[in-house]
Amino acid sequence: MSQKPEPELDTLATPPDELRGSLKALADAVARESAEADERLELITPEQIEDFALQDDYALNPEYIQLVIDAADRNDGLRLRDLLDALRPADVADLLGFLSEDYREQVIPWIPADALPDVLPELDDGIREEIVENLRPVDLAEVLQELDSDDAAAVFEDMEAEQQQAVLAAMDPEDREAMVTSLAFEEETAGRLMQREVVAAPDFWNVGDAIDHMRAHGADLPELFFDVYVISPTHKPIGALPVSLLMRTPREVRLSAIMEPITEIEVHLDQEEVAYIFEKYHLISAPVVDQGGRLVGQITVDDIVNIIQEENREDILALAGVSDEEGRDSTVFEVVRSRLPWLCVNLLTAFVASSLIGMFQSEIEKLVALAVLMPMVASIGGNSGTQALTVSVRALSARELTTANALRTVWREVRVGWFNGAVIAGILGCVAGTVWQNPMLGVTIALAVLINLTAAALAGTLVPLTLSRLDRDPAVASPIFVTMVTDCIGFFSFLGLAAIILL
Amino acid sequence: MSQKPEPELDTLATPPDELRGSLKALADAVARESAEADERLELITPEQIEDFALQDDYALNPEYIQLVIDAADRNDGLRLRDLLDALRPADVADLLGFLSEDYREQVIPWIPADALPDVLPELDDGIREEIVENLRPVDLAEVLQELDSDDAAAVFEDMEAEQQQAVLAAMDPEDREAMVTSLAFEEETAGRLMQREVVAAPDFWNVGDAIDHMRAHGADLPELFFDVYVISPTHKPIGALPVSLLMRTPREVRLSAIMEPITEIEVHLDQEEVAYIFEKYHLISAPVVDQGGRLVGQITVDDIVNIIQEENREDILALAGVSDEEGRDSTVFEVVRSRLPWLCVNLLTAFVASSLIGMFQSEIEKLVALAVLMPMVASIGGNSGTQALTVSVRALSARELTTANALRTVWREVRVGWFNGAVIAGILGCVAGTVWQNPMLGVTIALAVLINLTAAALAGTLVPLTLSRLDRDPAVASPIFVTMVTDCIGFFSFLGLAAIILL
Repeated sequence: MSQKPEPELDTLATPPDELRGSLKALADAVARESAEADERLELITPEQIEDFALQDDYALNPEYIQLVIDAADRNDGLRLRDLLDALRPADVADLLGFLSEDYREQVIPWIPADALPDVLPELDDGIREEIVENLRPVDLAEVLQELDSDDAAAVFEDMEAEQQQAVLAAMDPEDREAMVTSLAFEEETAGRLMQREVVAAPDFWNVGDAIDHMRAHGADLPELFFDVYVISPTHKPIGALPVSLLMRTPREVRLSAIMEPITEIEVHLDQEEVAYIFEKYHLISAPVVDQGGRLVGQITVDDIVNIIQEENREDILALAGVSDEEGRDSTVFEVVRSRLPWLCVNLLTAFVASSLIGMFQSEIEKLVALAVLMPMVASIGGNSGTQALTVSVRALSARELTTANALRTVWREVRVGWFNGAVIAGILGCVAGTVWQNPMLGVTIALAVLINLTAAALAGTLVPLTLSRLDRDPAVASPIFVTMVTDCIGFFSFLGLAAIILL
Repeated sequence: MSQKPEPELDTLATPPDELRGSLKALADAVARESAEADERLELITPEQIEDFALQDDYALNPEYIQLVIDAADRNDGLRLRDLLDALRPADVADLLGFLSEDYREQVIPWIPADALPDVLPELDDGIREEIVENLRPVDLAEVLQELDSDDAAAVFEDMEAEQQQAVLAAMDPEDREAMVTSLAFEEETAGRLMQREVVAAPDFWNVGDAIDHMRAHGADLPELFFDVYVISPTHKPIGALPVSLLMRTPREVRLSAIMEPITEIEVHLDQEEVAYIFEKYHLISAPVVDQGGRLVGQITVDDIVNIIQEENREDILALAGVSDEEGRDSTVFEVVRSRLPWLCVNLLTAFVASSLIGMFQSEIEKLVALAVLMPMVASIGGNSGTQALTVSVRALSARELTTANALRTVWREVRVGWFNGAVIAGILGCVAGTVWQNPMLGVTIALAVLINLTAAALAGTLVPLTLSRLDRDPAVASPIFVTMVTDCIGFFSFLGLAAIILL
């Protein structure tokens, strides 16, 4: 845009184009560097640090993690403390998950002592163990006493037996009692999940009684609650009152007149069932009852969200042949232990499929096209089977597939298999017949695809249905069976048909 | 146990063993039948019906569904009404999902009119459309007015444009206004998810003011709420007060002195991000703000549970190459449409892998063992790749894998690949070498497995990481890439090495 100066002056006054380009890049870099430095220097107040750490999407900002690593490299404890202080417990836990073990060791001592109880339940299991191992029993006892009974039990159950004893000994008798009671319930049951702290009101009270009681006993109430449970004289819950409903109802109304129906959770119910009930009825909290129907605690939806994620994680990993013990902090060895077993099983089933191919060696020698094409039949079958399988496993875990619609579902899958099979067989048959100039080869592979996609539909639905009826987790073992079926049927039908039709 | 009678008498008095057996079976069957009939006759009160329908695990009892089908077959409308009346809305919706289309048409008219608004949001999309299409605009308008703004918008947005116009015309001006505002936000954003009904209090109020206000304006308050938001004079939320905290705090305390920090949700935030924030901080409800930071609504955790399940469902199905539009009520054609595209892509990638094999036909003709063994190399690689891929996709969607630990994660996966590869290569190499009495064949396949498992580790992590950086959903396209890589590398490395080492 600017007018070009005279060439004579130009040589001195401004650098040539290339140099100008690189100088500009340098200047930009310097400006950027110092802007970044400024930006980091400006991270002084906790609010600034938190904003930087979380940015817009609330996922931990990698640049923030770099700040922590830099501070650790500099051994700058005060900076570490500031950086950690600004975060909420869930974010501190998240940060530790992103650090390598060495940096973690450096950072952990700087977690504010008063934040530790809230950080612990949020941590990945392996990291929690690292921290817990290094705490003195008396400190650990104090931490556990700060937590809700469900969180405390979760931390406690992962500890070594020896440490558990020491911690129990260091606890107040009352908290010790609570811990022992909580641990008496099996893992992954409602009893373990519940908080024992609830607000209950006898059925003959009115709204005013309930409000006065709560206002008089504020200190004894749970820190956070959503429902007041109405109980019968035998301590059985018969209804629930959302606190917000209490708030807007006249004092003289009897609780039993406005209470809402409850969905009781039996104390021994599996946590997966509990999650299903919460999800189905959109519950915020639910009373937990013992076998006699008496109120013993409550479960709130915030704990359920974690369970749902955990169960989903198990399903999705199991389908891929990964045991769910892997985390981002797992060592190579732990990951190997979680994945190698399934690869070994896969090796076994591959031997089976391979020995089927071995039966047709002379056919392959006569017509090498068979070797080229046979993996396609197996591959398409495997993918079809995985589709049907995944849909079935998910429907089973959402209780959308039961004996009530099993037959209809299987029949639909078979028709889907035929339809998809017809399309794929058509394409593949034409291509193979044309490329190898052998129409009967096309017919052979088309027939094999049709057979294999039918097998895939049947295996993909019947295998998970059967496992589920046998009370096994269909996500865990199904993929092995289904791929074995589609591999074997794929190779056998294609090579067998070839032996009959072509040779 | 009873003493055996004399043989002479026996012939007449008691039947021979076989006959005795079948008579007993008959008697048992009759007894069972009549017990069942009794049991069904006893299903008279709504409580009895609900207990029978849900049993212990709250999944719909297939026998209950059979009762509904029987009643429909008998055209017994009164029985249908009783059976439906006893269920909660979520269970009615679940029941419709289990029925075939014909039975659904028979059952739908018997859903109690006052239950319909609550049933609609619970239904599978396809079934909801069936019902909504057949409602008169004026009835539909009434139903929508009953619903929370988020649920109403969800039902409304699935309707035909023509019906939407008719329904809007039939609504009260106020509700119409609310609906239009809600629909102004993009689908799957916080704005669409939120309820506009909130309870807010100015920051200069004290606890007593807030309680008095609520008790005086009970009728105007949202039906259910958990937090009172404290707002600044410019209507920006600055804190939250759980109702339970209000309940146990003395009247004279200022709200601003006890309010808890809030996590604001910006109105345009994607629902997946919203779910992540709720999950991370265990939120029960959160205020939604417009771009100016002003309070415009709230999101509660019960809606989030659905989002979480929806997102998980999308992930798990996408990994298997199923588009998420399938439901248990889908027709064969809908299922085909959701699955065939991926099978076609799979066919393309299989052609690529197959043409690689085609390059080595002369080698296969010379040594047919190659054809027998090559699918094993591809299969093990494919499974390893799927393991790494699934772990990466899940970690990405949980924000546990970011640029902060990407390099470390890839490096760990590669070492896992080497370790697993060494074990599998060892076994496979020994077996192949022994069975074919050709040690070099064993070496060849072992090397190929090692190479392919390294490729699987790299592809399984780098492909989803790259897609995620490009802002694409890594669950959707990754499996195609990864299996193509492991198939191609598997065949090419094994056959290529064989050409070099063995022939």
